[in-house]
Amino acid sequence: MTTAVTRRAATDQEPAASARRTVEDLLQRVQDRLSSFLAAERAHYAEVHDHAVVAIDALSDLATAGGKLIRPAFCLTGYLAAGGDPDDPAIVDAAAALELLHISALVHDDVLDDSRTRRGKPAVHLLHSTLHRTRGWQGESRRFGEGVALLVGDLALVYSDELMSTAPRGAFAEWHRLRSEVMIGQYMDVAAAAEFSIDPDLSRLIALIKSGRYTIHRPLVVGASAAGRADLAPALAQYGEAVGEAFQLRDDLLDAFGDSAQTGKTAGLDFSQHKMTLLLGWAMQRDARIRDLITEPGHTPDEIRGRLLDTGVPEDVERHIAALVEQGRTAIADAPVDAVWRGELANMALRVAYRNK
Amino acid sequence: MTTAVTRRAATDQEPAASARRTVEDLLQRVQDRLSSFLAAERAHYAEVHDHAVVAIDALSDLATAGGKLIRPAFCLTGYLAAGGDPDDPAIVDAAAALELLHISALVHDDVLDDSRTRRGKPAVHLLHSTLHRTRGWQGESRRFGEGVALLVGDLALVYSDELMSTAPRGAFAEWHRLRSEVMIGQYMDVAAAAEFSIDPDLSRLIALIKSGRYTIHRPLVVGASAAGRADLAPALAQYGEAVGEAFQLRDDLLDAFGDSAQTGKTAGLDFSQHKMTLLLGWAMQRDARIRDLITEPGHTPDEIRGRLLDTGVPEDVERHIAALVEQGRTAIADAPVDAVWRGELANMALRVAYRNK
Repeated sequence: MTTAVTRRAATDQEPAASARRTVEDLLQRVQDRLSSFLAAERAHYAEVHDHAVVAIDALSDLATAGGKLIRPAFCLTGYLAAGGDPDDPAIVDAAAALELLHISALVHDDVLDDSRTRRGKPAVHLLHSTLHRTRGWQGESRRFGEGVALLVGDLALVYSDELMSTAPRGAFAEWHRLRSEVMIGQYMDVAAAAEFSIDPDLSRLIALIKSGRYTIHRPLVVGASAAGRADLAPALAQYGEAVGEAFQLRDDLLDAFGDSAQTGKTAGLDFSQHKMTLLLGWAMQRDARIRDLITEPGHTPDEIRGRLLDTGVPEDVERHIAALVEQGRTAIADAPVDAVWRGELANMALRVAYRNK
Repeated sequence: MTTAVTRRAATDQEPAASARRTVEDLLQRVQDRLSSFLAAERAHYAEVHDHAVVAIDALSDLATAGGKLIRPAFCLTGYLAAGGDPDDPAIVDAAAALELLHISALVHDDVLDDSRTRRGKPAVHLLHSTLHRTRGWQGESRRFGEGVALLVGDLALVYSDELMSTAPRGAFAEWHRLRSEVMIGQYMDVAAAAEFSIDPDLSRLIALIKSGRYTIHRPLVVGASAAGRADLAPALAQYGEAVGEAFQLRDDLLDAFGDSAQTGKTAGLDFSQHKMTLLLGWAMQRDARIRDLITEPGHTPDEIRGRLLDTGVPEDVERHIAALVEQGRTAIADAPVDAVWRGELANMALRVAYRNK
């Protein structure tokens, strides 16, 4: 079968640009698949009752709100680097499954963190608690809004699984581990924030689980395994864990110093939710007063930011990110895959480590 | 392979008792599989960090707390009635998957309803908000406890899916529909409770989706499809929807008049959560004052119970349950399955409709 994807890849002159374009074409298919899958489900449930489509509409809003599709991109790249056929629809479904899993995690995360904004719009729990209040409905608006978010996230989780069910069986072990691990990593994160003891080793472990593995390492291995190349797992793990830590450190910096208009997320949430991030953990080791600024009421985010900058930790974090990117690029340099894909993975490391949203 | 299960089935003299015993032996295997699966996961995560096993332990507590295993029982019965091999471990995994899905729904439901007790112990969200408070941790105890319950339920959902992934592919379509439908039915239930308009048609629709299909009809069809008999779906649907409505009506009666020491659940939760159940919907049609008793503060459950009894609706509900059981038994009477299994399904209808917990 010759399609737009393979034709374009074949005729392109510059191999690196061609590799990236193949991934981008497939990401467009992932986006289309998400839309058509949710539209078919909506059509099914619209026959049942008006209320039966509310949760699906919430998912469609998030799926079309311009997410970064980082996990699908790594899954597709792992698959293509491993020699997978770009025209097999099962890999588009698998990549779409990773995105729906992520949407589920975001909706539930926003409840855990009481985040106000997601992908530039009100978070699901906030939207529905507001609707509850406006309509003068029975019961507590907060419980209603958070309950709706809980169900919307659950629905995303089961749809994610439905999309993955047609993937090659070889990808399942990694997919199962990815999912249980992210749930357990989330618990560890929430518990560490509640304990709020300064423990950079624990912060690194959580970053490894929640970001290194969930965002980069395991999506790559899901893709490579779907193409029958589980042997690539060790190199992809080394790459993914280093680049994933860089990804998480950038996340910490964007939360503390980024522009919420650009990120589409509430800024300074790690402060207000007492997240024991690597950035904050290291900063508190140098300046114990920062812990008080975060836990005592009445301190502004600007005050915390100023104090953070004074420690010099943000600059050190930038240097650490650069070292991690280098480490990731080295890990992939000798992997037994085509040089074009080694190059693309090296470029992806730079893009995720130096993103601005 | 000849095992205890098949040997015992073959040597038993009384066919109906033998059928039931085969199901019960398999249910014991389901229980063992849940325990061994969760133990293996615990062993894996115990290597990671102390916090990494907390969510798994919460699931083990629920899995061993003596649930009724109704959904696994219907799945196994559908499978065996359809001629499935009782020694295939995949059906044990599929039945265990249904139970873990149900545990996920219970944990999340208890957050939605702010229920205090589950399977005779404190609900997960309550246990963890209490731990948070006792330890003097940072942040809001309620958000922490509900957040933990959210993650524990998510973990049950992904484990459920992992167990189902080895089932015969023929069972997947029904499994996918079962899961999206229960999430959407939950939303409809929560929204109907918040709106609290008297609409018995909507209450029946929700009972059909949340109980008839989720508890009985679809587990039966998952089992029958796993055995390659998707042709049984129409008869199993008719049976399941009737018996499922009876199951839900009994649930309503147990919530209003049952003994919480027996059910292991908080009593009177439908009153305090303004659940627009069939029982309450019909009662309010006869006596509008009941709506006020439920929505105004200061009325005791006993006051509501007395008024409910005065309407005569509880007796009508008993008669309706009897009619539904009959309807279910009729639906299965001509199904193209062995008479022994038709008999067992007829007995199961009685057991779920006249349970006391």
